[in-house]
Amino acid sequence: MSGFVQGTRGLSLNTATIGWQIPLERTVALCEEFGFGGIAPWRHELHDQGIAEVASRLKQSSLQVTGLCRGGAFTAFGEDGLQRAVDENKRAVDEAAEIGAKCLVLVVGGLLDGSNDITRARDCVRRALEAVLEYACDVGVPLAIEPLHPVYAAERSCISTLREALDLCDHLGEGVGVAIDVYHVWWDPGLFAQIQRAGDRILAFHVCDWLIPTRDPLKDRGMMGDGVIDLPSIRKMVETSGYDGMCEVEIFSENDWWQREPAEVLRSCIETYGRHVMALEEVTYP
Amino acid sequence: MSGFVQGTRGLSLNTATIGWQIPLERTVALCEEFGFGGIAPWRHELHDQGIAEVASRLKQSSLQVTGLCRGGAFTAFGEDGLQRAVDENKRAVDEAAEIGAKCLVLVVGGLLDGSNDITRARDCVRRALEAVLEYACDVGVPLAIEPLHPVYAAERSCISTLREALDLCDHLGEGVGVAIDVYHVWWDPGLFAQIQRAGDRILAFHVCDWLIPTRDPLKDRGMMGDGVIDLPSIRKMVETSGYDGMCEVEIFSENDWWQREPAEVLRSCIETYGRHVMALEEVTYP
Repeated sequence: MSGFVQGTRGLSLNTATIGWQIPLERTVALCEEFGFGGIAPWRHELHDQGIAEVASRLKQSSLQVTGLCRGGAFTAFGEDGLQRAVDENKRAVDEAAEIGAKCLVLVVGGLLDGSNDITRARDCVRRALEAVLEYACDVGVPLAIEPLHPVYAAERSCISTLREALDLCDHLGEGVGVAIDVYHVWWDPGLFAQIQRAGDRILAFHVCDWLIPTRDPLKDRGMMGDGVIDLPSIRKMVETSGYDGMCEVEIFSENDWWQREPAEVLRSCIETYGRHVMALEEVTYP
Repeated sequence: MSGFVQGTRGLSLNTATIGWQIPLERTVALCEEFGFGGIAPWRHELHDQGIAEVASRLKQSSLQVTGLCRGGAFTAFGEDGLQRAVDENKRAVDEAAEIGAKCLVLVVGGLLDGSNDITRARDCVRRALEAVLEYACDVGVPLAIEPLHPVYAAERSCISTLREALDLCDHLGEGVGVAIDVYHVWWDPGLFAQIQRAGDRILAFHVCDWLIPTRDPLKDRGMMGDGVIDLPSIRKMVETSGYDGMCEVEIFSENDWWQREPAEVLRSCIETYGRHVMALEEVTYP
């Protein structure tokens, strides 16, 4: 456990995990109360509360901002609308800078509307990323490409594997890395080799679990330990690669965790992080 | 169109496509009536009708049996039950031989019950395959490993990519190849390279389409042209690799195609195969 921060200070809460049930300022307070080390908010929360106020509150807090969710969607406005997508991403970069986020997480987008050409979608993504990266480097915000599970290839991300994300990073150069979410990559036979290859380009590490059965691939993720992902093995490999950041819990769970009290969710995150990610026998609460 | 058989004679019907609504003998008659070149039945249909009778009917027919669905499920009875799974697969090999199937299609199985160790599952699959392959070679039935979409990794197939299936074929040697189903592999950035690598190890080629949205990854597949898979490009690459077999339509569609009259489904298969797989401007009916 050399890489990860010890105890609950090693945990970051992605605000999706509580289904954005409460205003961001209350989520920040809750994370502090429970001893979390970090938080990863979503852009709509910044807009709802006002970004200056959010930035000020986060700076006063004990929390590190492990990432801003999210940029990307480069294919959303079609090939002709690439500039619009780039501009939107530059705004996201500015917001990430303003709240002091460690990275801007990118979900790159799926097929272009009405097209079945995934190669063309990937080409659009690459071109848009080149444009955004230059800006992000100037502003000083690292971009984190998050490969999404192949089940989302058509509608959300034409970048499906860690290998593909790293190939893109190789092409783009400095200032860009990856966000590794166990949900998207656990099935990949090349996973460990690619995590080693990623090395210091791992900018974020997200955990949750893959449920059996999965009723909805989008919003039926499980709490750590409730599914079939070998979390300790993946965590150790990420550590070994040199990652020393936090472990961010991101759970989309419309019919289960999003229906529960935020405090209960945070308590479960702490317990299951200790037990099923860090593989501790005893978990003590703050 | 050098590789594929021309016209409807190039089409094979996987009986899953009509939801096994009618007895196999009627499906055989329907395929003949519509000018299909082949059929791929499921084992439960053989058992329902009696395998000797099925074998006799198929031999009298004008249809090639492009595959028997299916063997595999090597992890279904746990690590201790590997021999049971092997025995079951030997029976499937015998049945494939009896009906003159070009191959036995294998869906290898997911995680072992109660385990989150996908490497161990793959190891079980490899060992079971070694045992079955020896028998299949003696009997003369080629085994076709079908990599399944990563969304099925936990519950149905720990072999998720064509690359992984071919690595396994490399290990196993003669007598085993792959079944390529566009539904499972269309998203893969390494697809074309792996199809080239596969060459004459492509034992079956399955088509359908990936719908947007997909309401259920298991039983909500689309008819060709109704989704986002670039069918002509994949078909051409499979041709170029040297495959000269049939194009087998396999559609799991509980709420749409399985609700329709079998004759209507077959008519749609012919039309959309011509239009969206072969990319013909005009489709003529038999």
